[in-house]
Amino acid sequence: MKNSNFYTLKGYKIKEKHEITEAMEDYLEMISRHIKTNNYITIKELSNYLNVKPSSVSKMANKLKDLGLINFQKYGNITLTDEGINKGNFLLWRHNTLQDFFKFINKNDYKLEQVEKLEHFIDNITLKNIALFLTNTKF
Amino acid sequence: MKNSNFYTLKGYKIKEKHEITEAMEDYLEMISRHIKTNNYITIKELSNYLNVKPSSVSKMANKLKDLGLINFQKYGNITLTDEGINKGNFLLWRHNTLQDFFKFINKNDYKLEQVEKLEHFIDNITLKNIALFLTNTKF
Repeated sequence: MKNSNFYTLKGYKIKEKHEITEAMEDYLEMISRHIKTNNYITIKELSNYLNVKPSSVSKMANKLKDLGLINFQKYGNITLTDEGINKGNFLLWRHNTLQDFFKFINKNDYKLEQVEKLEHFIDNITLKNIALFLTNTKF
Repeated sequence: MKNSNFYTLKGYKIKEKHEITEAMEDYLEMISRHIKTNNYITIKELSNYLNVKPSSVSKMANKLKDLGLINFQKYGNITLTDEGINKGNFLLWRHNTLQDFFKFINKNDYKLEQVEKLEHFIDNITLKNIALFLTNTKF
């Protein structure tokens, strides 16, 4: 009996090696969102915005720094590196594209939770095609 | 500073208490798919179809039995209870609806992996609206 193409969700995760985890994506997206209108974000702000304990935020911020995505400035204020800006912009585009799609399909009954969950698992080709579809659709 | 509505993926998972986990959904969906054309499925078949070790399949099958979703027959063959049939039919409908949507948006460049990953995180209202959209769209 030949193995099939199906895997469990865990199976897919083991098959893949992502450079940044889903949690890191959540942090980087929130940092990028905040830095669009401010110069930096603090651990305390990030902790509040993501509903995560400050100690966990500190730990994750250090991982993002090790990956060259953020820097710590005076007083521990967080800023983005050039690579962090690029990746963050992609994450915000991904978020907004999915958000627009859910608004379209659910006639504006928009749920943040749906976007926040699905954005980690959708591939770039599908995202680009969704963006193209929304551009070409009057709604 | 007020907490926001954002959570990390882990945060959302902690907030929720699902009756059946994503892994259980993968198993139940595959059992249901197989039982549509056969009377039962064996641990070995399920192991091959899901690319999971037989020992892990046995463990999970026992959990599904405890939840009243499957039964073990003679020789350990797996069948579905009435509740298992209902839940399994829902999981297959969810899978097929998402599959049709990805075929539509990606012009038939269909990737099983995308469906398998996203199906666990999409809500029922969105699914119903996607099904309605596909029914009303010529493609």
